[in-house]
This record gives sequence, structure tokens and C-alpha cells, in this order.
Amino acid sequence: MNIPRGTQDILPGQTEKWQLIEAKARELCERYQYRELRTPIFEHTDLFKRSVGDTTDIVQKEMYTFTDRGDRSLTLRPEGTAAAVRSFVENKMFGSPNQPVKLYYMGPMFRYERPQAGRFRQFVQFGVEAMGSADPAIDAEVISLAMSLYKELGLKKLKLVVNSLGDKESRMAHREALVKHFQPRIGEFCSDCQNRLEKNPMRILDCKADRDHELMKSAPSIIEYLTDDSAQYFSKVTKYLTDLGIEFEVDANLVRGLDYYNHTAFEIMSDAEGFGAITTLCGGGRYNGLVEEIGGPETPGIGFALSIERLLSALEAENVELPVNEGIDCYLVSLGDEAKDYTVGLLHNLRMAGFSAERDYQDRKIKAQFKAADRMNARYVAVLGEDELKEKKINLKSMADGEQIELPLESFIEKFKEICK
Amino acid sequence: MNIPRGTQDILPGQTEKWQLIEAKARELCERYQYRELRTPIFEHTDLFKRSVGDTTDIVQKEMYTFTDRGDRSLTLRPEGTAAAVRSFVENKMFGSPNQPVKLYYMGPMFRYERPQAGRFRQFVQFGVEAMGSADPAIDAEVISLAMSLYKELGLKKLKLVVNSLGDKESRMAHREALVKHFQPRIGEFCSDCQNRLEKNPMRILDCKADRDHELMKSAPSIIEYLTDDSAQYFSKVTKYLTDLGIEFEVDANLVRGLDYYNHTAFEIMSDAEGFGAITTLCGGGRYNGLVEEIGGPETPGIGFALSIERLLSALEAENVELPVNEGIDCYLVSLGDEAKDYTVGLLHNLRMAGFSAERDYQDRKIKAQFKAADRMNARYVAVLGEDELKEKKINLKSMADGEQIELPLESFIEKFKEICK
Repeated sequence: MNIPRGTQDILPGQTEKWQLIEAKARELCERYQYRELRTPIFEHTDLFKRSVGDTTDIVQKEMYTFTDRGDRSLTLRPEGTAAAVRSFVENKMFGSPNQPVKLYYMGPMFRYERPQAGRFRQFVQFGVEAMGSADPAIDAEVISLAMSLYKELGLKKLKLVVNSLGDKESRMAHREALVKHFQPRIGEFCSDCQNRLEKNPMRILDCKADRDHELMKSAPSIIEYLTDDSAQYFSKVTKYLTDLGIEFEVDANLVRGLDYYNHTAFEIMSDAEGFGAITTLCGGGRYNGLVEEIGGPETPGIGFALSIERLLSALEAENVELPVNEGIDCYLVSLGDEAKDYTVGLLHNLRMAGFSAERDYQDRKIKAQFKAADRMNARYVAVLGEDELKEKKINLKSMADGEQIELPLESFIEKFKEICK
Repeated sequence: MNIPRGTQDILPGQTEKWQLIEAKARELCERYQYRELRTPIFEHTDLFKRSVGDTTDIVQKEMYTFTDRGDRSLTLRPEGTAAAVRSFVENKMFGSPNQPVKLYYMGPMFRYERPQAGRFRQFVQFGVEAMGSADPAIDAEVISLAMSLYKELGLKKLKLVVNSLGDKESRMAHREALVKHFQPRIGEFCSDCQNRLEKNPMRILDCKADRDHELMKSAPSIIEYLTDDSAQYFSKVTKYLTDLGIEFEVDANLVRGLDYYNHTAFEIMSDAEGFGAITTLCGGGRYNGLVEEIGGPETPGIGFALSIERLLSALEAENVELPVNEGIDCYLVSLGDEAKDYTVGLLHNLRMAGFSAERDYQDRKIKAQFKAADRMNARYVAVLGEDELKEKKINLKSMADGEQIELPLESFIEKFKEICK
């Protein structure tokens, strides 16, 4: 029996790194006051059609869609924002006195893509959403949270790229300019782009197939079409980023692959050598209008999502070792059936006292037990033989310096606590 | 847009409890030396047919099965053991020098059941699996881990029920006796039970529909058919439980609803008043033979799974309040545009220094900002007005005692660190 194609098991040795990253993300969210929201793994398919957008690759090609036993069309979530907004609306969070509502999520997402190095059909995203405020300071906050996560985990080679996609008016003007620009030679573009010309010409700029076409470079930039309000909003965002000491570049061609973005859009990339073709670690942006689209009241919103898999690859590319806990406090070695039986309770008491502890469950000889203790990086090894048991003593060896002491069996746990203090 | 039927959002205010429970489970696993394994949300459908069993309700009625774009039959995992065993085999963990391999998992499972109070179609299970040892001490360890989780979280009204399902020989003898017992009157039983008579008569004892039939009480007990080896194994397990000070009852009718169990089977139930009809919190048992079934070498195994949703219900039924963190370290109140702008950087610096901190993003008046600070249970409120900004000072108020002090703006973070020490 094999694992489904494009998915992976995360094994002991690796999961500890995931735990550490997740704990760091949770701790940062606590400091920034984003609170966790957990939505189901699947949603009604319509939710994604409506929010992610009918013309996107995700909806057209990559969704895991199925019909349940009650004949509902369900889809494994391909991203986190749609469900967060659905939950915001359904649970009437817009009515809370605490505005903006600041949420985070962490969990698996699903896209049916061609498996390749670093790209999985199930991957884990950490994301935040701030709904209810149109203060450009919240845009800077959201960006800063993502940057802080990377920096506090030890990444140094980061590149932050920001852009403004403007408001509706800016986008309409830009759209018109784009159609005018591409229309005469649209036949030279891929069929996806030909469809996009009518439905969402901005996404032509995002096309991977046609990225080298000469019309791409000369395409009209959204920055030239920003209304005064939009331009002012964007300049506030960049001012705040500067205030926070966060370096960035403005890239007028940055368009995100989802339909719902406007105003601020950003990506964080890895600049590390040998990171490979996929350099984007995190993407996000503003989505004023999406809450209405999902049936809620007019509400501004902004968020980002980042993949834990790519974060791990970036750490690897920069040779950052995460400070994962290793080793156990005590390994119990025993000799003889009676002593062995006795360690069942002793082991339990060590654990109840808060220590990580282990014993042999394989009927190993004493030498093999010591080897096992070594493999587990035991800080102490306690040895209980038949003689020790008779004399109600136990031998404790510190593996750091090889020192050995004898302790009364009765008060072993108490003494061990003192030694470990 | 609504959430899919039978699923739930877990909202801020609740998620903090989940985090606390999960952190406790992880910490216990560290002490007991179980390490996390993460398998995909879906598996090939065959895996569950083969391991959970073709005749079970889960496989026959409750699985979310679908075909992916590559025409594979996939199923959202209805439980965790099958995938853990699949991963054990596929990743050749049986070859590791560290035996038994002790794993834990935590994550959503999916069963298409009729939604009712406390029962969801997506629910979260925490479970452990120890593969590679047939030492009865490991059975006691696994049971003790589950009990420790409940106890350390504050549950008191727990009932542990254990049974032995024996080895193959015991089960064959018992099976024959069961067929003899039920055959003459099988017509009085539900159609599921009629099917079970041939395929797996032991599961008749587990039937919810026929639980009150008079033949149920008089059915032959597995305990009477245990071979000497099986009986001795079971007596070792109960001895160790006694050694660990864990109370239990033996219930010869305890059969688990999955095909793969043998030897030790157990359930932990809540005895709390008003807990409702579903009293089982945790179930587990030995599954020697399952690893071979999935294509691995002969390997004994034992594990349990418990639902976090039910654990939360049990805590509620016993009125246990989890010690969830509340409140923030500092709320920044500002007056005037310039001061407000200034707080963007100040807020960031507080957070970078490790504090949880917040400011207003809604252009609120000063009184409303204080109210927001109150709602967020701020321990300190720092006030920056136009005058303070000019004088490069900031006013800090302790919300515990109302005391106020003025601090130099320049060294605010340093001073705040000292105050909070």
C-alpha cells in the first residue's frame, strides 16, 4: 500500500521542526494579537468559485472536488482566505466590538498539480486575515508579521516585493489599457491568456507560459493608473514599512494569482542560492470587496498565506538549523525479570514527575540496553539489577561526565529531581 | 455561503482551549517518547477496506470516498491507525534500531454520520501507536498515556474498561461458540448482524440496534476461550495497570468496532453526570497482524485514539476550566494624527521585544480606545498625545492598580521591560 501520489508523510525527525515553526507562528500571532480560526478541510465548491475566481487555474484545474453521500458538491480547500471570510460572515464577526477581526489559520490545503520538487498536492499553509480596517498601518502590520516569522526563525536572504493594484476605478482604467495593449496580438498568446483578455486581462501579466513575450515588458503598469486615493494609500503603506525598518522593492508587475486582490499586494521571496525555481515563500494582499461577495456587509480585509514546506526549504537553502529538542532525561536499564518488572512503575513515576524517560520493551541484554540509551541521547542512565533491587538501591550514571552515584530506590524520583534542577 | 453540514468552525475563544489540549498531549508524548507522524488527509481507499475491515460501518456507510483527476479512488481518512501502519511499512520503520517505534498523530478524521450533539462529520483525533513490541508493559504504557492526558487536564470522573480479545486461536474458538449461540435465532437480529454472523460474529456483540436482545447477555464470553498464553498476557497487562495505580474494570463484552484488534482492548469513559449518551472518550487495543495485512513483516502493535471534541465535552461536564492565557501586555492609546502615526513603530518595537501589544486601527476617539484596551484585558495602557510627543514622553498606566508614570519615549521599551520583569 502506497501513499497517494503528490503527498508526503512527515516523519519523526522532521515533525519536530514543523512543531517548532508552528509554535513560533502561534507565539508571534499572540504578540500581534491574531487569534486562531479553524475551519473544515472541505467547503461547498461554490465558495471557492465565487471567491478565488472562476478564471483562475486553481478553480479551473486544481481543485479536489467531489460529491458527498448527501449529493453536495464539496471541495478540499485549495487556500485559506475563502473559508476565513465565510466563517467571518456566517459567525457575524463583523458585529464584534473588537475591530478589525484578526485571525490566523494553520493547516493542510489541497491542489491537484503536477508533483515536482517542493510542490505537493497537500501542503500546509499558515495565514493571517485582518478584516474590518482600511488603515494602511494594518497592511504594514500584516507584512511585518510574515517577515518576523522568517527572521526570527533565522532566515536572512529575504526579498519583499510590494505593489498596489489600486481600487476599482484604478483597475478599470488599467484594464482598458491592457486590453488595448494586448488585443491586436492576442493570437500570439496561450489559450488561457486569450480567455483572460476578456475576463481578467491583468492576469495575463501573471502567465507563466507567455512570460517572455515582448508585449509583457511594455504592458501598461497599474501604478500609472492609480487614482489619487489609491496612490496615497499605497504611499502610506510604504512609509510605514520604512518606519518599521522593513526593506522592500516596488514591482509594478506583481499581480497575485487570485481574483480578489486590490490595493496592497506583496510577496516575500528567498534570495538564497540554490533555493531552486520557486522562490516565492509568502504572498498576500488586500481584498476589500470579498466579504460582500460572500454575503457579508461591506468590509475591508487583508491577509497573507505562506507554505511551511517552502519555509523549510528556505531554511535548508540557508543552512539554518532549528533548535529542536533532542535526547531524553533518563533511560532505565534493568537486569533480571524482577528488576525489569519493577522499572514499569519507576518509568511511570519519572514521567509523572515531568521527565522524558524510556526503558527497554524488547527483552534486550544489558549491553543492548545501554546502546539504546545512547541512541536516544539519554542524559542519565539508571541501572537496576537484581542486587540493587534486593538492596533497594539504584545506580545513576550521568552520560555527560560518566559520573556514577548510588541512590536509595525509595527516594529515587525525589533525588533525580534535585540532580536535574 | 454556509459551512458544510455536520462540520463546525472552531472560533477564537475556543481555539485557545484546543491549543492547550494539544500542547499537553505533545508534552506527554515527549515524556513517554512517542514522536509525531503526519500522514496525508486522504489515502487510497483500499487501505481502509483492508485494515478497518470490509464489514464495518465505517467502510460500508461512513467513508468520504472520491475519485481524483488521475482516476484514483481516494478516501478522507476515517481513523488514524491504518495510515500510521501504512507509513510504518512504506518507510521501513521496522528496520529502525529503535524498537518499538512509538508514534503519535493529531488531526482531523472524517465520517459521514448523521449529525447530532457532540458528533461531527469532521472531528479531531489524537492517537498513539507502538509497533514492534509484544511486551505487555507497552499495553499498560499506552493506556496510562491516555489516562494521564485526561487526569492532567483535570478530569476526575473516568472509567477505564479493559478486555482481552485473545490471539487467533482464542478468537477461532470463541467465534465458533458465538455462531452456535446466535445461529438458531439470527432472524430476530438486524440485517447487519445477519451479515456479521458469517463474516465476523464477534461484532454482533457491538451492535447498537440489538443491544437489548436477550441472547446478548447470555452470549459466550471471550474470556472463557482465551488460550493459556493469551490469559497470561492479559493478566500481565492488568498487573502492570495495578502497579501504575490505574483503576480499571474488566468487561468481557468490550469489543471494538474495528476488525483489527486482538489481545488487549480498552475504552475510557466519562462518568460525569449530564455528559450525555456518548460516554466513550477513548478506545484502543492491540492489533498484532495488521502490519502484515498492509504488506509489512510480522510486527505486533498497539494504540489508541481519542477525540478532542469529546474531551472538551467531558471537561465541560465536569466544569473544568482550562488555564487559557488571557489579556495583552500593552495597549497603545494615541491622540492626534502625528502621535497615531508614531505608535505604528512603537507597537512594532513592543512586539519585537516579545510583548503582546495592540493599538487602534479604526480611528477611534480616545475614550473608545480605552474601552478597547479594557475589552482586551490590557495589563498596561500607554498614552501618547500631541503634548507627550512634543515632550518626547509617554504616559504608562497599570490597569491592575491604576498607577500612572511618565516615561521617556526614547527608552520606553527598555523601561517597559524592566517594569514587566
